[in-house]
Amino acid sequence: MKNSKLQLWQRFQQYYTEFPELGLALDLCRMKFTEGFLASMEPRLQTAFAKMKDLEAGAIANPDEKRMVGHYWLRHPALAPQPELRAEIEATVAAVKAFAVEVHDGRVRGATGPFKNVLLIGIGGSALGPQFVALALGQPGTDKLAPFFFDNTDPNGMEKVLAQIGRNLGQTLAVVVSKSGGTQETRNGMLEAAAAYERAGLSFAAHAVAITGAGSKLDHVAQADRWLRRFPMWDWVGGRTSELSAVGLLPAALQGLDIDALLAGARACDQVTRGTSFKTNPAAQLALMWFYIGNGKGDKNMVVLPYKDRLELLSKYLQQLIMESLGKKLDLDRVVVNQGITLLGNKGSTDQHSYIQQLRDGLNNFFVTFIEVLRDRDGRSLEVEPGVTSGDYLSGFFLGTRTALYESDRESITLTIDEVSAFSVGVLIALFERAVGLYATLINVNAYHQPGVEAGKIAAAEVIALQAEIVKYLGQHPDGASVTEIAAGLRKDGEEETIFKICRHLSANADRGVGQTGGISPATVKFTLRS
Amino acid sequence: MKNSKLQLWQRFQQYYTEFPELGLALDLCRMKFTEGFLASMEPRLQTAFAKMKDLEAGAIANPDEKRMVGHYWLRHPALAPQPELRAEIEATVAAVKAFAVEVHDGRVRGATGPFKNVLLIGIGGSALGPQFVALALGQPGTDKLAPFFFDNTDPNGMEKVLAQIGRNLGQTLAVVVSKSGGTQETRNGMLEAAAAYERAGLSFAAHAVAITGAGSKLDHVAQADRWLRRFPMWDWVGGRTSELSAVGLLPAALQGLDIDALLAGARACDQVTRGTSFKTNPAAQLALMWFYIGNGKGDKNMVVLPYKDRLELLSKYLQQLIMESLGKKLDLDRVVVNQGITLLGNKGSTDQHSYIQQLRDGLNNFFVTFIEVLRDRDGRSLEVEPGVTSGDYLSGFFLGTRTALYESDRESITLTIDEVSAFSVGVLIALFERAVGLYATLINVNAYHQPGVEAGKIAAAEVIALQAEIVKYLGQHPDGASVTEIAAGLRKDGEEETIFKICRHLSANADRGVGQTGGISPATVKFTLRS
Repeated sequence: MKNSKLQLWQRFQQYYTEFPELGLALDLCRMKFTEGFLASMEPRLQTAFAKMKDLEAGAIANPDEKRMVGHYWLRHPALAPQPELRAEIEATVAAVKAFAVEVHDGRVRGATGPFKNVLLIGIGGSALGPQFVALALGQPGTDKLAPFFFDNTDPNGMEKVLAQIGRNLGQTLAVVVSKSGGTQETRNGMLEAAAAYERAGLSFAAHAVAITGAGSKLDHVAQADRWLRRFPMWDWVGGRTSELSAVGLLPAALQGLDIDALLAGARACDQVTRGTSFKTNPAAQLALMWFYIGNGKGDKNMVVLPYKDRLELLSKYLQQLIMESLGKKLDLDRVVVNQGITLLGNKGSTDQHSYIQQLRDGLNNFFVTFIEVLRDRDGRSLEVEPGVTSGDYLSGFFLGTRTALYESDRESITLTIDEVSAFSVGVLIALFERAVGLYATLINVNAYHQPGVEAGKIAAAEVIALQAEIVKYLGQHPDGASVTEIAAGLRKDGEEETIFKICRHLSANADRGVGQTGGISPATVKFTLRS
Repeated sequence: MKNSKLQLWQRFQQYYTEFPELGLALDLCRMKFTEGFLASMEPRLQTAFAKMKDLEAGAIANPDEKRMVGHYWLRHPALAPQPELRAEIEATVAAVKAFAVEVHDGRVRGATGPFKNVLLIGIGGSALGPQFVALALGQPGTDKLAPFFFDNTDPNGMEKVLAQIGRNLGQTLAVVVSKSGGTQETRNGMLEAAAAYERAGLSFAAHAVAITGAGSKLDHVAQADRWLRRFPMWDWVGGRTSELSAVGLLPAALQGLDIDALLAGARACDQVTRGTSFKTNPAAQLALMWFYIGNGKGDKNMVVLPYKDRLELLSKYLQQLIMESLGKKLDLDRVVVNQGITLLGNKGSTDQHSYIQQLRDGLNNFFVTFIEVLRDRDGRSLEVEPGVTSGDYLSGFFLGTRTALYESDRESITLTIDEVSAFSVGVLIALFERAVGLYATLINVNAYHQPGVEAGKIAAAEVIALQAEIVKYLGQHPDGASVTEIAAGLRKDGEEETIFKICRHLSANADRGVGQTGGISPATVKFTLRS
């Protein structure tokens, strides 16, 4: 079914909603759901609203981990179910702001001068939000501190970031972010950073701040070594919804971004998305559209296309928020459902010159969420043709692509924001958080745990342990050993493949002392340890 | 079917192939294809090899556009079917190198000193390759020129890049890349850059180089305004396979990267991937695996996960190469097939803390292509635990995730490279180029055109034209007009929605002179033009 242009205009008027208090509009007219679909979903939607109300009131909304889910309290502390929680949230925001002021005015400073850089060391929920916000709101030359990130355990990647910082390590504030304090990538990043400070003759502790759970390993280290400051994380805030806790607020405040506006945007969006009707609640609109297009099973990929360079990391941020929250094997009744929604996308119009060819002509396995930003730039625009600006082209390409996709039966949602600002970024964060929460109830999954990531971590720990055994074994066998021999010697039959992989990795790094002879076949190659 | 660990080790030995001359290994053992599948594909594969041979010999392999497809000649000019082409390729590489030397030694310099930065202005195939290579091989502090990019028509995005460059515009070499010279994003980027140089009292022409087709609009501008230099693009090189033409070689050479090694890697990979058996040809292995996992219809998403920060842009680069090449409506017999393979991914182990939850537990709608890099870093590694390095963890997380996914029946390919170097990046580019070409024959599509992107461009041009009409109309109606009135007045019934969107965009940008009154409903809002 394709609508005539007149019908489209009518449908646009029906399903285009402005939320002026949020600087937001949502347009569903290019989604081909029916009124009947909306009516059929109404009971489930009301259940989702009710569950969300319970969650906000402090219910154990994450039953597997027996935790409350409190990210909505972060921007409206009066909502917190206990006065102590409210006090902690308020005290933390105040401490973040006070610390940022001390850093900015030079009372807290590095060994070689006032802090010019902030190096955030974290991964996943402890990095994606800060990275998204830093790119969206920062401005080179104007930022009070320039942001850098260690977001992986790649040693060369860390070296490269250190090379960017160059000789300014003595004016670089390290912010180590780990709720448990046990995330190994972050622990490694901290150790690599500390070694770099030491090589530069600097005390790491005198340049370091921790954001972590009270009593965590990291908390103990920071306390024992007298780091500059410690900020709390709470078990009722999940990593992927922690941007408006100290995790996101501290680096943003240090960069000089307006965290009050960030919080205000999220708070205003929360207020609107507490509405209990489809028409007035943009988060409910998103959630129902996701259900419609994917049959409640994620049958279509979500392509997120912001037409604004500053929002380029939104899709990465949403990959975590949406895929980690919804990608679940079991539903709340322990039935195997293998749920999720797959997300991709970078930015328009750039992506039009990349994969939009496939979107328009190829597999119809997706829907697009366009993010339109009305305001082009500060100040006057250059005319690239009489009466036409670069921003007009950006807008034109967005509208043209939306039309071209619709003409070939590809559906899309358009989310419009007035401008990219701290307030609107707060709105976007809160909007998608709530949409995910509501959708999770529609499909009956726990959006607040991540049981599937443990298996990979456990398997990785086994690899690390096996490596030590291999190195020890090779030390005892100076003539070297084949993979089969190592496996037999360690009584690790069945681990040959992993042993081969570990040995190849070691032998490719000259400083590890592992050599190889005997060709390139996994069956014949022999590994040796240089003494 | 799940294999026992012993069976896996046997399967690993069978389907793990090292290509020592490429520093490459490919492991298919976690893909559950059968020998029968391989046998059944053999005739099609031989056809693909034969077609590729014709292509390399100069056949019109892009029939719709009646063009030869010559990217393989770029790294082995002696293969070019005509001596003039060979001469042009060789002369261009020589000219690129000579120009880079002149820039590096200061014979060619900016108004305020030797060039320190290169600002590439391009989009899609004229930016993604250079961006991928710059990130993979560059090193802050060591690069001869620091790379910057305008890759969109977002005016604020361009302003932000200019703010990064700061006061060094007089030492910044602008490289404008557009084959046709008609790509509007790039034209706009060029105009915005030129205006910035002028505001700084600098001549843009004296800091600009063009890479474009002979006789294009851009070529004429560069010639008329006496830009520093012009380099050619040819109609037999598509944008998405242009990295080893001047498009990629010039920025890489300016940055100080080893373009000879880049070309050597691609040439060596081409040599290996001309092999006509599955076992000896890694590109054929990839192509058959794509066919197997997606039933020749792209039924599964491809998740590309390099465990190396430097390769983070590989997935973006491959999105264009793969999705634009394969995402086609019609096959070569004009049958509607809606083909493609959807690609996503950033980097490991970072993504394990993001969407790997869904990969392991949620929708089984994907396969992973792991990219393993054996070499961790230059120099000695820090021990983060006794005998364990950050790189061991990176390797351990890769192996752990590969195992965990396999245990929950998610399939994966592992591509191993010895290190990230100019040579290995050349290998990767050539490997995926050839895999795409072979796979396209397997599914009988033209991999070398992009008919679907025109519709969006045409629709965008209509939007730009309509905007001018609207502004004119509002100028003639000083009391303002509703969307319906504008549509009626311009005889554009059916365009109400687009008119509303254009007016909203204009009214959000104060310098455009468009105001709005009458509420937020599309039906009632009135737009005015300030005189």
